[in-house]
Amino acid sequence: MTLRNHLRLALDGQHPRLGRTVEFALLTLIIVSAIGMGIETLNGLPPGIYAFFAGLEVFVVTAFALEYGLRLTVSDQPLRYARSFYGIIDLISFLPTLVGLLLTGSALDGRAIRTLRLFRLLRLLKIVRYANAADRLREAWRLVRDEVIVFGLAALIVLYVCALIIYQFENEAQPEAFSSVFSAMWWAAVTLTTVGYGDIYPITAMGRIFTVVMLFVALGIIAIPTGLVASAMSELRKRKAGEDRTHPPSEINREPPTRAS
Amino acid sequence: MTLRNHLRLALDGQHPRLGRTVEFALLTLIIVSAIGMGIETLNGLPPGIYAFFAGLEVFVVTAFALEYGLRLTVSDQPLRYARSFYGIIDLISFLPTLVGLLLTGSALDGRAIRTLRLFRLLRLLKIVRYANAADRLREAWRLVRDEVIVFGLAALIVLYVCALIIYQFENEAQPEAFSSVFSAMWWAAVTLTTVGYGDIYPITAMGRIFTVVMLFVALGIIAIPTGLVASAMSELRKRKAGEDRTHPPSEINREPPTRAS
Amino acid sequence: MTLRNHLRLALDGQHPRLGRTVEFALLTLIIVSAIGMGIETLNGLPPGIYAFFAGLEVFVVTAFALEYGLRLTVSDQPLRYARSFYGIIDLISFLPTLVGLLLTGSALDGRAIRTLRLFRLLRLLKIVRYANAADRLREAWRLVRDEVIVFGLAALIVLYVCALIIYQFENEAQPEAFSSVFSAMWWAAVTLTTVGYGDIYPITAMGRIFTVVMLFVALGIIAIPTGLVASAMSELRKRKAGEDRTHPPSEINREPPTRAS
Amino acid sequence: MTLRNHLRLALDGQHPRLGRTVEFALLTLIIVSAIGMGIETLNGLPPGIYAFFAGLEVFVVTAFALEYGLRLTVSDQPLRYARSFYGIIDLISFLPTLVGLLLTGSALDGRAIRTLRLFRLLRLLKIVRYANAADRLREAWRLVRDEVIVFGLAALIVLYVCALIIYQFENEAQPEAFSSVFSAMWWAAVTLTTVGYGDIYPITAMGRIFTVVMLFVALGIIAIPTGLVASAMSELRKRKAGEDRTHPPSEINREPPTRAS
Repeated sequence: MTLRNHLRLALDGQHPRLGRTVEFALLTLIIVSAIGMGIETLNGLPPGIYAFFAGLEVFVVTAFALEYGLRLTVSDQPLRYARSFYGIIDLISFLPTLVGLLLTGSALDGRAIRTLRLFRLLRLLKIVRYANAADRLREAWRLVRDEVIVFGLAALIVLYVCALIIYQFENEAQPEAFSSVFSAMWWAAVTLTTVGYGDIYPITAMGRIFTVVMLFVALGIIAIPTGLVASAMSELRKRKAGEDRTHPPSEINREPPTRAS
Repeated sequence: MTLRNHLRLALDGQHPRLGRTVEFALLTLIIVSAIGMGIETLNGLPPGIYAFFAGLEVFVVTAFALEYGLRLTVSDQPLRYARSFYGIIDLISFLPTLVGLLLTGSALDGRAIRTLRLFRLLRLLKIVRYANAADRLREAWRLVRDEVIVFGLAALIVLYVCALIIYQFENEAQPEAFSSVFSAMWWAAVTLTTVGYGDIYPITAMGRIFTVVMLFVALGIIAIPTGLVASAMSELRKRKAGEDRTHPPSEINREPPTRAS
Repeated sequence: MTLRNHLRLALDGQHPRLGRTVEFALLTLIIVSAIGMGIETLNGLPPGIYAFFAGLEVFVVTAFALEYGLRLTVSDQPLRYARSFYGIIDLISFLPTLVGLLLTGSALDGRAIRTLRLFRLLRLLKIVRYANAADRLREAWRLVRDEVIVFGLAALIVLYVCALIIYQFENEAQPEAFSSVFSAMWWAAVTLTTVGYGDIYPITAMGRIFTVVMLFVALGIIAIPTGLVASAMSELRKRKAGEDRTHPPSEINREPPTRAS
Repeated sequence: MTLRNHLRLALDGQHPRLGRTVEFALLTLIIVSAIGMGIETLNGLPPGIYAFFAGLEVFVVTAFALEYGLRLTVSDQPLRYARSFYGIIDLISFLPTLVGLLLTGSALDGRAIRTLRLFRLLRLLKIVRYANAADRLREAWRLVRDEVIVFGLAALIVLYVCALIIYQFENEAQPEAFSSVFSAMWWAAVTLTTVGYGDIYPITAMGRIFTVVMLFVALGIIAIPTGLVASAMSELRKRKAGEDRTHPPSEINREPPTRAS
């Protein structure tokens, strides 16, 4: 077996000797890096901690860049990998931070890097690779994708229309709170998801009447997709576990009719 | 083919040469007009922008008036179109703004126009014409219409009764917040939809006890219709996709019986 | 036909000539009386309005007392009616207000009446008599009663335990807001129903951690009963409309077996 | 019958003469103790009340310690009981308070006891033993455990990632409110459960846009497990009550095939 084959098997977690060691090492890097990002937000820790996580960040980014390079090298179809979903995640999981590192010489300083850092969170998506139990969710998503997309678009239109209407009613009474259609959309989103922070709400009679009508009519449009996904998932569960037992005749029909002859 | 037939096919998006061009042009007008209404709410933009959207508004209204006139002219049954659901939407999507334009000579000035502008949003309903994927929602709505209406009426009665009760408990302690049954209904709607802005809430012991009881008993009355629609939609999806496979006999029945002979 | 029979048929809405007139008259009285209670809460109306609704109140109470007396008189089993669900509703829909009227001589004055007024709302329960469409809800309720009661008790225990825990965490930091287990239960109810007014919330680290854990664990206990009722109702709908078509064998079984012979 | 057998039967509620007396006595102790914990939080009661509940606390703890000792003594396999779920609950339901009592000589004084007191609430878990009606919930839980655990982990990751993102957007504008990733996680939990107290919310444009996107994408991840449990429970109910009637063939299959021969 060539080194190239060894590397490919190791990166896929199927190496005979290394087994899943490489896979778990990469997964650990992702989680440690995510925890590091959280600790960086804390104030009042000893400076050594921040320095440690800055160093760790350099290490993690280097490791991911190395992994990406190796995957490209050992793959039979490098271009296909580079354009696949996981290939793109792998690339943007280190590229922005690496560029920031090379430009400023530090993983922590500078304002521009702060925004780039958010891309690092995409690394967590790599965990999806390891979650076999998430299969049913993906299957359920495929079942209800169409409805959810229709409802998503409908929700956006509803948000926009509700924002325009409440703006007409409230702008005069509360020019600060409902300063533009953007504030009104923020209000509509916070209200229709029933979060209701209380930072912005209607005070005019017409605005309140419209809000009540809106809540009763439009709440469903926001809440229904959730019900659809849940219902599809429980259906998939049923199909696997219980349906075969209660419908034996259909089981028989699935057998080829020529078998009995 | 006469010009009348050409026009009718073009407006229906079935013209051999123009194809769906006219249809998409009208759809674009609707969306541009809706975006324009949003931009008008922003402050601090250069005056040219406002003037551009005022002009655009005149153009859109004229285009819709023209479309309405053409549809009336080319239709074989003009009266039937004028009284249909889409005919009425088409009419009120331009009439109020057109009247405002003719009376004041501008699409943007004046207080009366501001209210009329809300009718322009009805144009967005025209998009329903183009959303084939929304069929299943309409079908699901037909399935659960009765229950939703019963629950809608029940919700209104519950709101009113809860408002009357909380008014008795809270009016004395908070005469400003719970000033009348209308404020109390606003509170009941915001509470039962679980939005809970926090602008108005009970402070007396009896009011709080009643609120907790109300939430536990009445929350279902508001939340159930959503579950009903979601359940009906997932049932329709199942019927189309999965039921055929598990119940092969019904598949056979759909084939013409003469085909086998 | 005797006068007694005439009256009985009229009260049941089955009189050949009066038809449903009496029934609709009684229903109108209920609704007018409920609307009157709302108008009484408004301030700044001309005094004549208040006087009118005070008079109306006397009239409504008298009418309901008369109706109750007549129903008792014409019934073949007066005691059975008096102890039935509707008999009790009929009685308490007028008795408290009547007693208040006789004691103080007015339907509107006095503090004692204010509390008695709440009983008047029970009249609205009479509408249940006229809502044929609510049958499916009653049937669904019978299906899920056991689960809902178990969940209701569980919800009460959860509320109490959560209140005791948050009290230990927050009482020291916020002795005003979390002054006793009652305030803490108010917080728990407002939080677990996701209303979240924002009048009272944890500020200590432990209190916040507990709140997050509580929300994730206990939210289901509050939300599940709603899902159960919705699911039972959609099942009943399916059973009536769709199940017969997709399971023809069970249809055959319902026919008498002797029919084929 | 030996005394040991008498005791064992009495503790299990199966004693021929004592019947369920001991069982109900223990259940009463649990409830009285829980009520006592609530009353201790009230201020302004006569000192005698507090003394009474302090004494009751000593009595309850002694009774539970006695019960635990007896169960250990009469059991054929004391170690198996001690390591069972109920054995551990029985132990921690009195041990912390007993240790506190022995160390400080009082059930009510001292700060350390205050925290230990929370363990007393675990006694309420003993009620689970007596709730036969909760069986279906346990069965439903077994059906959907896998999905709920996957969603629980997903929810934790989502909370953490959302907290990191909103921190980057809001920390500069609101250094007090979004002081660290912990405050941001508190915000994320309160927002994604739609509680929305309003004590902490985004004010920057980017933070608000992210919040709206987050709510639409991530709300489902929090809400779906509830739907799954509800759906599983209604399925179990159906299986018991209705499925047999509508699918008679499967009924037949359950009978032993040798019966007809």
